[in-house]
Amino acid sequence: MPPTDAMFLLAESREHPMHVGGLQLFTPPEGAGPDYVMNMISEIRSQTEVSSRFAMRPADPVSSVGNLWWAQNETIDFDYHIRHSAVPRPGRIRELFQLTSRWHGTLLDRHRPMWEMHVVEGIEDGRFAVYTKVHHSLFDGVSALRNMQNTLTEDPNDTELRVPWTPKERRPKPSGGGSRNPLALVGDAFSLGTTAAGLVPAGLKMLRQALGDHNFTTPLDAPRTIFNTPIGGARRFVAQSWEIERVKAVGDAVGATLNDVVLAMCSGALRRYLTELGELPEKSLTSMVPVSLRPGESADGGGNAVGAVIASLATDVDDPVDRLMAIRESVQASKNLMKELSPTQILLLSAVNMSALALSPVPGFVSLTKPPFNVIISNVPGPQKRMYWNGSRLDGVYPASIVLDGQALNITLTSNDDQLDFGIIGCRQTLPSLQRLIHHIEDSLTELEKAVSA
Amino acid sequence: MPPTDAMFLLAESREHPMHVGGLQLFTPPEGAGPDYVMNMISEIRSQTEVSSRFAMRPADPVSSVGNLWWAQNETIDFDYHIRHSAVPRPGRIRELFQLTSRWHGTLLDRHRPMWEMHVVEGIEDGRFAVYTKVHHSLFDGVSALRNMQNTLTEDPNDTELRVPWTPKERRPKPSGGGSRNPLALVGDAFSLGTTAAGLVPAGLKMLRQALGDHNFTTPLDAPRTIFNTPIGGARRFVAQSWEIERVKAVGDAVGATLNDVVLAMCSGALRRYLTELGELPEKSLTSMVPVSLRPGESADGGGNAVGAVIASLATDVDDPVDRLMAIRESVQASKNLMKELSPTQILLLSAVNMSALALSPVPGFVSLTKPPFNVIISNVPGPQKRMYWNGSRLDGVYPASIVLDGQALNITLTSNDDQLDFGIIGCRQTLPSLQRLIHHIEDSLTELEKAVSA
Repeated sequence: MPPTDAMFLLAESREHPMHVGGLQLFTPPEGAGPDYVMNMISEIRSQTEVSSRFAMRPADPVSSVGNLWWAQNETIDFDYHIRHSAVPRPGRIRELFQLTSRWHGTLLDRHRPMWEMHVVEGIEDGRFAVYTKVHHSLFDGVSALRNMQNTLTEDPNDTELRVPWTPKERRPKPSGGGSRNPLALVGDAFSLGTTAAGLVPAGLKMLRQALGDHNFTTPLDAPRTIFNTPIGGARRFVAQSWEIERVKAVGDAVGATLNDVVLAMCSGALRRYLTELGELPEKSLTSMVPVSLRPGESADGGGNAVGAVIASLATDVDDPVDRLMAIRESVQASKNLMKELSPTQILLLSAVNMSALALSPVPGFVSLTKPPFNVIISNVPGPQKRMYWNGSRLDGVYPASIVLDGQALNITLTSNDDQLDFGIIGCRQTLPSLQRLIHHIEDSLTELEKAVSA
Repeated sequence: MPPTDAMFLLAESREHPMHVGGLQLFTPPEGAGPDYVMNMISEIRSQTEVSSRFAMRPADPVSSVGNLWWAQNETIDFDYHIRHSAVPRPGRIRELFQLTSRWHGTLLDRHRPMWEMHVVEGIEDGRFAVYTKVHHSLFDGVSALRNMQNTLTEDPNDTELRVPWTPKERRPKPSGGGSRNPLALVGDAFSLGTTAAGLVPAGLKMLRQALGDHNFTTPLDAPRTIFNTPIGGARRFVAQSWEIERVKAVGDAVGATLNDVVLAMCSGALRRYLTELGELPEKSLTSMVPVSLRPGESADGGGNAVGAVIASLATDVDDPVDRLMAIRESVQASKNLMKELSPTQILLLSAVNMSALALSPVPGFVSLTKPPFNVIISNVPGPQKRMYWNGSRLDGVYPASIVLDGQALNITLTSNDDQLDFGIIGCRQTLPSLQRLIHHIEDSLTELEKAVSA
């Protein structure tokens, strides 16, 4: 087993599950009867051809500290992996999030391939949802996660039911162009984080030499916040979609990128959230923002190779437009630095930025050291058109990432046709009423819209 | 923290959750509307006065091997502990068991008081269920678990909603006589098991001396079976009720006790189950059976002080009545031995019988040693009358106990008014189609009824 895979297994505990998840929300096709979801589950479970990735599990002994290796499960217990569930009354999205929070807070069984797919019915408006959960060690990099996106199609009349575990050579081609799975990038970022642990000592030295002439400073000083404390084992998950058009319009009005406005929306929301709790620090919060490492390409979250910059969220600035401008400037400064570096240097710089993540499982690390940044805000590319699965329309795809000791909150968003789908995961113990963040993001966007049109 | 409590926390891993659970099935009162369960949950969550037991959690650091101690949670997150859920379509009891299996296979969060109450609606016949889960370390002995039984009343018109965490001095008196919580005895048995680990070396020596004149043999030789292998992290739970009258009638016809017939029902069922899998050993299976240690009292599962005998299940006997008689004889022999011993000697003998349980978390122990017995079958006393909760009739109360490496199956039953409620928990990986055991138990009982009436 590669060391980066093993790292995720060894670092895992009840309090630190190392899986990533995603919640997809679907509108069933017209004329779908009450048994639509139940029948679909039977059809999903009947797709028993499994690619080797989806059959991998850690070989025994699963919990010992030592060499880990992968084994292949000969038979897959599909009744176990594919789970039929229902939202309790009154069946609002709020109840769906409560279920998702519970599922995201439990550990995957290491005696089986470490993935689960929960198909959920009973939402009051007749929609259904799919929550998928995969262990990061099993699905390192992009290989298998990309598959999930490939199950979708642009054609609403294409009712071929595709599943992510079908071996590639047997897979029916989706009629639309499947685009990149949003979770894959999160995976990349984390792989890089752990690889970074090994790179850091040598890396820092090389980096200092390489940057000799540049005005390079270590990551921005981050204040201590409630986000940067040891976490518990339970989670809160909330999600919401916003129209890309609204976000773009604000950016266009003041010359900021989409991603700048996204950061400003989050910044305004975090500012309100912390103020309500009496926990807003005087100094501005900082955010780790994964960016593209491809030279010459826009760094706004697109592309494959992922690095990380640390940007100020300007939470110490009162005026919303001033705050957006300060964020824009901070992101631009980091990007400019990157532009002058070689790809290897960028990788090393990113490794330094992310190395603290890799150390968070070390006991005492979080309590004794200052946080390298306050929160991860990650914008990853998703489907560029309206997509369908088995004739059902994909209304939203909301990532649920990993939280760690010292990083109790993660905001990951993905583009989906004409909207941005935000998935927010947090430690339940540390972060009360995470639902408010959703309202605060909307309020922040409205505030920006008013300010730039005034 | 007492060593027996700490033992359960230290022995716990993803594969070996150390909690006990119970599934209660209720018929709501006539005229209960569609919001009955939802409103009840609000009322449950509003009962925020909590006894110290239900506010206890392990103090940080929760996972380190060393001294553990208890802390008190100042605030309880009732939205977390009280969970509203729904059975997916078609809403049969089968779907309820699937949910119960999932819940029983996940670890409790050590950052909070280690208990959960799941209230489940959406069963097709309009009933609802309550699955409760408590960590054994938190609820050692009888103290807190007994509380749960005390929430019930014999009076269907008494709609005072009682919850098990209400402090004793504040608790409204149930109008009926609350009887013993069935799970408490299971807890006792396990406490004894772990205490036994320390007792064994000295105990065996004392016991040999005390038993010098008796024809005392070490526990019956148990064959290796699929029940006595290392377990995985997932569970299967199934349950069913049988009329006490039917079981008693078989016993009366041949001079066997209720418990003898229960063992014969289980024996016949395990025989069929293993035969179908091609896994029935030639030699008879043995069962550990918790019995009363009170001198002069019937040892049929009643009473408070619990010891354990190991009885042959006579699975090598073909004829059902002969099998019942062989079981009766084996149980009687063990009981007779106990009658001639002092209470301390009995405790030591039981400790020897149960000591292997305490050693099962030791790596390699299960693979290298012969099983001390094949399965635990535990009959614990429950309500003697039809009970009610908030006006809802308790139709069944099914225990879900602990399985361990080397003990992949546990059958615990409890009396409930005029019926016996069986709860069967097993390792999902080792034991396929556990549902069949339920049918086999019914077939075994029918077979016995026919044989004794012929």
